[in-house]
Amino acid sequence: MASIGIDLGGTKILAVLVDNGEVSSRHKLSTPTTGGPRAILDAMGAAANEVDPSGAAVGIGVGVPGPVAPGSGVLRLACNLNGWSSPVDVARELSVRCDRRPVFVDNDCNVATLAEHRLGAGRGVDNLVGVFLGTGVGAGLVLDGRLRRGPHGMAGEIGHTFVDFRAQAHGQHQGELEDYAGRSALERRARELHFRGESSLLVSEAGEGPIKSRLWREALDSGDRLAIRLIDQASEALAAALATVVNLLDVEIVVLGGGMAERLGPAFRDDVARRLASRTFAHQAVPIRAAETGDSSGALGAALLVEEGRA
Amino acid sequence: MASIGIDLGGTKILAVLVDNGEVSSRHKLSTPTTGGPRAILDAMGAAANEVDPSGAAVGIGVGVPGPVAPGSGVLRLACNLNGWSSPVDVARELSVRCDRRPVFVDNDCNVATLAEHRLGAGRGVDNLVGVFLGTGVGAGLVLDGRLRRGPHGMAGEIGHTFVDFRAQAHGQHQGELEDYAGRSALERRARELHFRGESSLLVSEAGEGPIKSRLWREALDSGDRLAIRLIDQASEALAAALATVVNLLDVEIVVLGGGMAERLGPAFRDDVARRLASRTFAHQAVPIRAAETGDSSGALGAALLVEEGRA
Repeated sequence: MASIGIDLGGTKILAVLVDNGEVSSRHKLSTPTTGGPRAILDAMGAAANEVDPSGAAVGIGVGVPGPVAPGSGVLRLACNLNGWSSPVDVARELSVRCDRRPVFVDNDCNVATLAEHRLGAGRGVDNLVGVFLGTGVGAGLVLDGRLRRGPHGMAGEIGHTFVDFRAQAHGQHQGELEDYAGRSALERRARELHFRGESSLLVSEAGEGPIKSRLWREALDSGDRLAIRLIDQASEALAAALATVVNLLDVEIVVLGGGMAERLGPAFRDDVARRLASRTFAHQAVPIRAAETGDSSGALGAALLVEEGRA
Repeated sequence: MASIGIDLGGTKILAVLVDNGEVSSRHKLSTPTTGGPRAILDAMGAAANEVDPSGAAVGIGVGVPGPVAPGSGVLRLACNLNGWSSPVDVARELSVRCDRRPVFVDNDCNVATLAEHRLGAGRGVDNLVGVFLGTGVGAGLVLDGRLRRGPHGMAGEIGHTFVDFRAQAHGQHQGELEDYAGRSALERRARELHFRGESSLLVSEAGEGPIKSRLWREALDSGDRLAIRLIDQASEALAAALATVVNLLDVEIVVLGGGMAERLGPAFRDDVARRLASRTFAHQAVPIRAAETGDSSGALGAALLVEEGRA
């Protein structure tokens, strides 16, 4: 059985054709930044036809950057997609563009976690959390072998778990994990501290441009003190949030992925794992495994939705 | 169908006979503080026979103060039970004392949550968290209509979720919810501050004795500044932990119970609910309902285990 999987991101759309768990064709294009949802849907439809010109796939799965109510196929809002400010029925609109084949839609972190559970670092483990470090911090949960979506499709928002309940009162920010471990927040903080006189390679190298994951890696390797301090705090905040997940849900492993986690590498994972072990209820060691499906996780997981939806 | 439910607590054992969801008989006794697990098992066996002398019940459910691996019936460790320092097979040992009828064992917060879901404030809601404020802070989770136990029976430890990830580094405590909202920790903090010169009714009234929930209520009513400050902080920490649960799991309601929550009453619940709404991801209002099954929640929920176990 062949399926098409599409990962809809803020900058890129990746489509793959998956046949018996193997990617047989892939196509990547830039996400349209004008024309709103219609242009984005047209681009996804074109990408689907590109990877599967003969129409062999029985259905299409899509991972989208926002919550999707289970079974609805509707993406209500997506801050990082041009003009996506009201609900659009992605399942229906994309089906129209793909010979009326069935379309299944879910959140991007959910599908990436599904990919890791079925084909990646989470194979054989039925209780896990997949955490993805990038601009923000997202997650997906597999509990008793099934994705935890929640009645509104809002489950898995680990970036919005609270690791410092007093931050709000102190007028800083909300005290959410994302405020310490998301690349956007890290960049904001680095620029702020640099501006106040703590010079850092991060800002002198990036200039006006974004501080990319690669640059964080380079700054750490050069012994940049500001970078070391901020990543140390990110590690501690992430360990606390993961301990909360373990103590609340009794998950067996953590799968860590996303561009920032890949760049920070094994040293960062080991550091988080060590801090996590000191915080779990019974001091049980919970392994943190590197995600294995890489850049394709979203598209691969989206293709898996088709199988799941037809079951 | 009749079942026996037993709530095994650190100070009391409560047994009930439940027939079609109604309690037809109850018996309460003090938990033996000498004789170890054997004496406690004997006392539970006697309580079961007391509420059901004719042996009408088809099985016995037990709620215990510690985690139980699903299906095992074994309580490994219970800090607040005399001599319970190694694993005891409660299911087998109690069955021997009760005409070999089947015995089902689960954590006390899990069974209390089950009682609220089936017979109390959580009826009709399939995604909820039950939180119980007492000496510590415990919880149970119902996700998609089923108790979330976890592979090791360790799920639901909300008292051990982290609301302040920097507390540990500052050499205070772990920064767990229980450190701010559990009655033990609140008492420790009140005594410490009183000793340092902030006089409080809590300590002057309690003297060497424990600061009970009733006394916290009285201190708040008298405008005791120390009590007001500590309960305000408990409310903020609890709201943050609940927001974490909502954002991570997409639960629809919170059921709040336990001796401390009962004494703090509706004003406290409203306060926590207001703070919670400001912290949920989509700013959705998540109602906090008062637990309805009261003192019997543990025993009632334990009786429900029999029905579930026979299904």
